[in-house]
Amino acid sequence: MAEKQQTTHDNTAPFTFEVANGIGRLTFTRSATYNAFDLSMVETFETFLRDRRYDEDTRVIIIDGGDAKGFCAGLDTKKYAPEIFSMTPVQAYNAQVRMSRLFLGMRQIPQPIISCVHGAAAGIGFSIAMASDLRILAKNARFSAAYINIGLGGADMASSYFLPRLIGAGRAYEYLLTGNWMDAQTAMDLGFASRVVDKEEMIPKAIELAQTMCEKNSMGIRMTKEAINISLDCPGLEAALNMEDRNQIMMSYTYRMK
Amino acid sequence: MAEKQQTTHDNTAPFTFEVANGIGRLTFTRSATYNAFDLSMVETFETFLRDRRYDEDTRVIIIDGGDAKGFCAGLDTKKYAPEIFSMTPVQAYNAQVRMSRLFLGMRQIPQPIISCVHGAAAGIGFSIAMASDLRILAKNARFSAAYINIGLGGADMASSYFLPRLIGAGRAYEYLLTGNWMDAQTAMDLGFASRVVDKEEMIPKAIELAQTMCEKNSMGIRMTKEAINISLDCPGLEAALNMEDRNQIMMSYTYRMK
Amino acid sequence: MAEKQQTTHDNTAPFTFEVANGIGRLTFTRSATYNAFDLSMVETFETFLRDRRYDEDTRVIIIDGGDAKGFCAGLDTKKYAPEIFSMTPVQAYNAQVRMSRLFLGMRQIPQPIISCVHGAAAGIGFSIAMASDLRILAKNARFSAAYINIGLGGADMASSYFLPRLIGAGRAYEYLLTGNWMDAQTAMDLGFASRVVDKEEMIPKAIELAQTMCEKNSMGIRMTKEAINISLDCPGLEAALNMEDRNQIMMSYTYRMK
Repeated sequence: MAEKQQTTHDNTAPFTFEVANGIGRLTFTRSATYNAFDLSMVETFETFLRDRRYDEDTRVIIIDGGDAKGFCAGLDTKKYAPEIFSMTPVQAYNAQVRMSRLFLGMRQIPQPIISCVHGAAAGIGFSIAMASDLRILAKNARFSAAYINIGLGGADMASSYFLPRLIGAGRAYEYLLTGNWMDAQTAMDLGFASRVVDKEEMIPKAIELAQTMCEKNSMGIRMTKEAINISLDCPGLEAALNMEDRNQIMMSYTYRMK
Repeated sequence: MAEKQQTTHDNTAPFTFEVANGIGRLTFTRSATYNAFDLSMVETFETFLRDRRYDEDTRVIIIDGGDAKGFCAGLDTKKYAPEIFSMTPVQAYNAQVRMSRLFLGMRQIPQPIISCVHGAAAGIGFSIAMASDLRILAKNARFSAAYINIGLGGADMASSYFLPRLIGAGRAYEYLLTGNWMDAQTAMDLGFASRVVDKEEMIPKAIELAQTMCEKNSMGIRMTKEAINISLDCPGLEAALNMEDRNQIMMSYTYRMK
Repeated sequence: MAEKQQTTHDNTAPFTFEVANGIGRLTFTRSATYNAFDLSMVETFETFLRDRRYDEDTRVIIIDGGDAKGFCAGLDTKKYAPEIFSMTPVQAYNAQVRMSRLFLGMRQIPQPIISCVHGAAAGIGFSIAMASDLRILAKNARFSAAYINIGLGGADMASSYFLPRLIGAGRAYEYLLTGNWMDAQTAMDLGFASRVVDKEEMIPKAIELAQTMCEKNSMGIRMTKEAINISLDCPGLEAALNMEDRNQIMMSYTYRMK
């Protein structure tokens, strides 16, 4: 991706966010740098996620790559890597942790996230798609766990947690070990994506799904997202039932019975 | 589904159960109410599962929707919901727990369960299919985690535990958050089902698979079902091997060496 | 498979191993017995795996079935079973454990393993494919968890751990409970395999993927394989991030910063 990035510092806002009828649309706006992440983008996205945790007005979030040639080129290594390499160990570790916790933040906010991916989603771009609840793809969407290509390991930014759970361990090793591209049709076949559509149909399809969710009880939607998160890591079926049962009784008394 | 249900109380038996040559066939018989679950059905199914735990004569169980328009419409909310809403909190919690434990019971009995699904399987109907070991579908089969549609959460009756493990987390969030229908072909593509056939081929195909299992050592079949249950929740590969190894040595000494 | 095996003792070496340009090729060489495992083969493969743990010269391993009619027919029950049945309990348990730990060993060595499977892979043959990182199949490849066919349980040699994680629980119960064959196209559809190609294209495709991995930092490849292993069993996303973050910072300081 590097040849597509500008080397000059990019001071434009990293994304816009607008809410209408409960649906929040986050659109990356650094098309010149293929929406690559630098430190300012990490900080802005971190703040964005923190602001959503108790935001009752936003019920579903749609993320897309806007006018860039692709969804997100990953880390802006031209800008960010030199900064990291001038850091002390604790600063470098904090920079790493701060970035990786974005993907924990995406799972912790109550709103389901629908990623609309066109073109390349590499590194952090792939991880944003993985950390979303649903994925709508344009036909030219493609994904690379590019982490392995820059001299480090391929398990980074939650990729080793999400990918086996999303597409199965059978293919997850391949993509993280090689950095090879996964195209849209393969992503669909492996259960990674919910729909593959023409690029101009991507946002309308996402809005349609978001509207379906907005018609439900918003506390029920939140309980659902959180319950699947929890059940993915639960020690067994009985523990999952104990959690689900309490969710539903809480919902019954707080919403339906009043 | 509601418009398809009768509002009069349904006193017919909820299902029949017949065993021949080790194969037990449970057929839901409340076609007038689309095999929807009311309290009597919960109790009868609970007793049925308890009776199977030490039943050596039934080696495989096949479940189907009989003459109803579909497999099972879920909870009979017209009848059951009013009962729940007149309950004390402990009664409501017990009603919830009692229903959800049916799906634990399906995993705990030694017999593999093959669900044959035609038409709609919604809510509890979907959960019965999820809690089965194998699924044979008619071409018109379709599944909805309808839990999200009635003002509660979409994670209910073990759906948040089973669905990500059956079809991957990539699509599980979508179906539980939207309640959207998953059709037979999608279920096949996502690895949810073993076969999609014409409706009249559903039972013969299930019997063929059941006969294959009946040809094996029945204790070996039981160990296999239990071992996969256990390995799904195991802390790691070595723990799984410790369990598998003991199963096989136990089998060797108790069956093959005598 | 039994009718394809010779009953005479097979004293040929069980496999050859050659390393070139970082790619190690293990080829099974007991075509007369369909590469079935006897005790000498278990011991030789065990030693092979132990020798790879700190072998920096071998960066990726490719395993194939050589000139046999298929990849591996599983346990050579004609030779091995009688030996087991003359053993004391502790000897029998050790024989079982020793075999099953081969599959732990395959996950513990730092090199990614690519299995190239043509024809039948039954029992241990299926488990070798499951315990690999990637699978390239010839069009006639087929897999059977034949363990259930010999009077024991179908969960053996790590099958109950690997198969649900590779293809999803939706089909794993079926294959382990029935011993039915999974063909190459189904394996591809379920995400078990990375490619299905003509038999003569199998090794070139595996070498191409191996070369891609050899171009990366070998410590990064090792961290990636180990990280996915760990994340498959991790208690949750945050634990996975803690591990990934430390991997990457360790890599940054030990490789990139010097």
